[in-house]
Amino acid sequence: MKTIASELFKEFREHSVSEFFRRNAAMLGYTGKIRSLTTVIHEGVTNSIDAAEESGVLPNIFVAIKRANDSPEHFKAVIEDNASGIPEEYIPDVFGKMLAGTKLHRHMQQRGQQGIGISGGVMFAQMTSGKPARVTTSVGNGEIVQAEVMIDVDKNEGKILDKEKSNGDWRGTRVELEVKDVTYIRSRYGPFNYLRMTAIANPHAQIGFVEPDGTLTVFERATDKVPERPKSMPIHPWGIMSDDLLVLAKHTKSRTIAGFLVAELSRVTKGKVEEIRKLSGVDMNKRPSGLTWEDAEKIVSTFKQIKFMAPPTEGLRQIGAADIESGMRQILKPEFVCASTRPPKVYRGGLPFIVEAGVAFGGSAGKSVEGEAEGEGAETGGLDLIRFANRAPLIFDQGGCAITAAVRSIDWRRYGVDIATAPVTLFVNVVSAYVPYTSAGKQSIADEPEVFAEIRSAIMDVARELRHYLYRKIRTKEKQQRAGIFEQYLPVIARKAAHLAGTEVPDVGKLIEKVAGVKVGGGKETPEEG
Amino acid sequence: MKTIASELFKEFREHSVSEFFRRNAAMLGYTGKIRSLTTVIHEGVTNSIDAAEESGVLPNIFVAIKRANDSPEHFKAVIEDNASGIPEEYIPDVFGKMLAGTKLHRHMQQRGQQGIGISGGVMFAQMTSGKPARVTTSVGNGEIVQAEVMIDVDKNEGKILDKEKSNGDWRGTRVELEVKDVTYIRSRYGPFNYLRMTAIANPHAQIGFVEPDGTLTVFERATDKVPERPKSMPIHPWGIMSDDLLVLAKHTKSRTIAGFLVAELSRVTKGKVEEIRKLSGVDMNKRPSGLTWEDAEKIVSTFKQIKFMAPPTEGLRQIGAADIESGMRQILKPEFVCASTRPPKVYRGGLPFIVEAGVAFGGSAGKSVEGEAEGEGAETGGLDLIRFANRAPLIFDQGGCAITAAVRSIDWRRYGVDIATAPVTLFVNVVSAYVPYTSAGKQSIADEPEVFAEIRSAIMDVARELRHYLYRKIRTKEKQQRAGIFEQYLPVIARKAAHLAGTEVPDVGKLIEKVAGVKVGGGKETPEEG
Repeated sequence: MKTIASELFKEFREHSVSEFFRRNAAMLGYTGKIRSLTTVIHEGVTNSIDAAEESGVLPNIFVAIKRANDSPEHFKAVIEDNASGIPEEYIPDVFGKMLAGTKLHRHMQQRGQQGIGISGGVMFAQMTSGKPARVTTSVGNGEIVQAEVMIDVDKNEGKILDKEKSNGDWRGTRVELEVKDVTYIRSRYGPFNYLRMTAIANPHAQIGFVEPDGTLTVFERATDKVPERPKSMPIHPWGIMSDDLLVLAKHTKSRTIAGFLVAELSRVTKGKVEEIRKLSGVDMNKRPSGLTWEDAEKIVSTFKQIKFMAPPTEGLRQIGAADIESGMRQILKPEFVCASTRPPKVYRGGLPFIVEAGVAFGGSAGKSVEGEAEGEGAETGGLDLIRFANRAPLIFDQGGCAITAAVRSIDWRRYGVDIATAPVTLFVNVVSAYVPYTSAGKQSIADEPEVFAEIRSAIMDVARELRHYLYRKIRTKEKQQRAGIFEQYLPVIARKAAHLAGTEVPDVGKLIEKVAGVKVGGGKETPEEG
Repeated sequence: MKTIASELFKEFREHSVSEFFRRNAAMLGYTGKIRSLTTVIHEGVTNSIDAAEESGVLPNIFVAIKRANDSPEHFKAVIEDNASGIPEEYIPDVFGKMLAGTKLHRHMQQRGQQGIGISGGVMFAQMTSGKPARVTTSVGNGEIVQAEVMIDVDKNEGKILDKEKSNGDWRGTRVELEVKDVTYIRSRYGPFNYLRMTAIANPHAQIGFVEPDGTLTVFERATDKVPERPKSMPIHPWGIMSDDLLVLAKHTKSRTIAGFLVAELSRVTKGKVEEIRKLSGVDMNKRPSGLTWEDAEKIVSTFKQIKFMAPPTEGLRQIGAADIESGMRQILKPEFVCASTRPPKVYRGGLPFIVEAGVAFGGSAGKSVEGEAEGEGAETGGLDLIRFANRAPLIFDQGGCAITAAVRSIDWRRYGVDIATAPVTLFVNVVSAYVPYTSAGKQSIADEPEVFAEIRSAIMDVARELRHYLYRKIRTKEKQQRAGIFEQYLPVIARKAAHLAGTEVPDVGKLIEKVAGVKVGGGKETPEEG
């Protein structure tokens, strides 16, 4: 029987995830000529630093943006690292298959997570220039593989167009992407500032950058300490939903629900399993595959009635106050710098996080990088807020970010800072395996009350230190001015007085020293430390 | 040889698109307790109205939100329509497979497009309640199919848990989704307002709605005219990129590039193909599969040098001023209503669109629906802006929308409207097969200059009419007041004067009539129309 439906459903089709993101490239950050280029660099650098850390080496990153021809909107972007390299057989999937990667199933604090990033870059390149990605990689076995990779959008698969092998003693990966319809400028939202921010938050990384006009900038590393490898962190019972528990149960290797809960969640001991069994009535000896939704709901609601130890935080990898200070000192050459790393806290009951803040005054601190982002207006002078999540810079969508809100909530005059003019750079890094991003663009942090409060406290920690410094600075300046006045006039007065009195000119040096510490206009002064 | 890479790449995995959206449900609009419930309703209603239009019937939509148990955050959402129904074999894909649908490959003005919507709803239901979607459907062949569908997240496939068939003379589809962790309130951002807005923009639809407390509201249809079916609209050469051309070439049935260009693009004739051949040097007799990137770039750059007829606009389906007025009158019962549909325009050289605006004053126009959205603050009283794209309400992310910007850019005092207090509802609908959304959430329209200008013009068209009405209204009121004064006092004066003069009381009726049109305090007045 012919129905309207049978007519309409002739058109029924299925799309690949690559085709979806080809149509919705803006969802991956490819929106606007400046931002699109920054996103390409971001994806490459993120992968490189993650891979270097996982390989236990100090990252040496090299980035170049070259003009591809005479067009002002056509470039080649090169990102090279010294990390593990990529085994030959994985090249098509790493660069040409979306939702594939080494980081998907692990609860680990890393920059990349979805397995979309670099294949998104390859997609953007081929969409705009028609050119494949050129990948050069070696796992350090003496063999260097060079391949050209494109994405077969219909199948979400990487296609190798060309492959060559050579011998050489090198390990690492180099990706070259040719992109069109993008603009290079040294704006706050451009690649230069992105890399500068990355260097500050990753003082163990050395980042070399060649701009299209050939200018080479090297952001030197400020520490030779290799950060500890990030550690997989099981979810804490307080932070889990029934659906998550079922998904975990499906993929576990444990043979009983009891074993599964102990293995896959943090702070669940055999003793706790017994408590859970009593309260929930769920049979803990069933196979995890036999866990029903009702079981999961009972277990999750039981979790809330049981006391667990707070979630472990040893998997969190903060930068540390000393390294933040080194990083800011290295890049900004400020007069004053100070950083603070807060102790770990949790939000939503079970998700651990750490907030760190740093402040730099003078030197090239403050809003020095000029230029406009598309639609965001020019900004020059005054407090420069640089935001990070797990050391990766957040440069877009700052309006909706909890870090921006925290900065605005502070009365900066109390700290002696005029945020409109002061040469101050404020650094904030939020560290977690579960950063609460507001959207998939991962450019701003959601307003979770516990996270907001910690960000605010961290900023106030460093703002207080800055206030001390600024007060000292003012006092020293006043002192110098006073000393200047006495130095200038006292010898003259002494000379004239001696001349009048007909005596010898006395030595006023000691006197100057003595009075220089006293306020000219009278009154009292607190003793100076400096 | 064992390398670091071989160790790291042991963890390499691939994810399904369902798993991706399970982790990133916020990307599909599932964020916040109020918005999540509205999104569920939106996805169901969108599909229902699209399907009714494609089937050529007047939509009868029934929506119910019922408490699933005693919890204030646990509901059943029901959406039922009288459209084509779904053939049995497509049920798993329609409800359980993301990126699959009947609308993906067509350049057609429709509400849904990605094939994610309703499967996203099914996913959200199973994530929060663990329950399958209950689907009841019939294509009108006398057989009614009832099925329970879940998504196999690992495979991105629909699973039928249970299926029953019965006989009955009914056509349509009913979906029942059980959702948890959501809130029902009659807020601006809740389902009630969403359906009210949908009813205004779809005056041919009848929408019945039962709220959790049992209240039934019927938004009656205001017209019995079935809208024309949307028409597939080929892309105009001015609006295409090289990559798009290659994708089209890959899927075309034409045998030569010449034939392909004529068949797949609008306004390309055989004569134009000859011009393209001469200017680009590309062989037009090659098979489309032989089209290279270089060919595509040459052809696309040639397009810009050739005169084409403006893109066809007959595929655009505006609501029309008369129906907007009926819709607003039906739902808002205003004192005054007026609408304007602008002629078709194009943006980015080749993408046709139409803007329509309507304004209603008095009755239940203005910000009548109170309540707060998560984080957006309460709003009551004053101008209520209701935004639409292809008749689908846009209720979130209004801050970044070109429609909001256009409203703000207007000096409303010039139109006699105090936007803070006036009981005014302003309606704007942007119609296009390519609505320039700012993000995949499809809740706000990007600031394309041509689109912005048209929105502004449409609003000013109706604002002028509103000004005339308001002026007339003020004049009439003043006149009535004046008439009132004379009516009240003139007879008294006449009586007293007659008494003093000892004459008979004169008939002042005619005098009142005469002076009522004259300003009390002296001066001149322009003649009244009303």
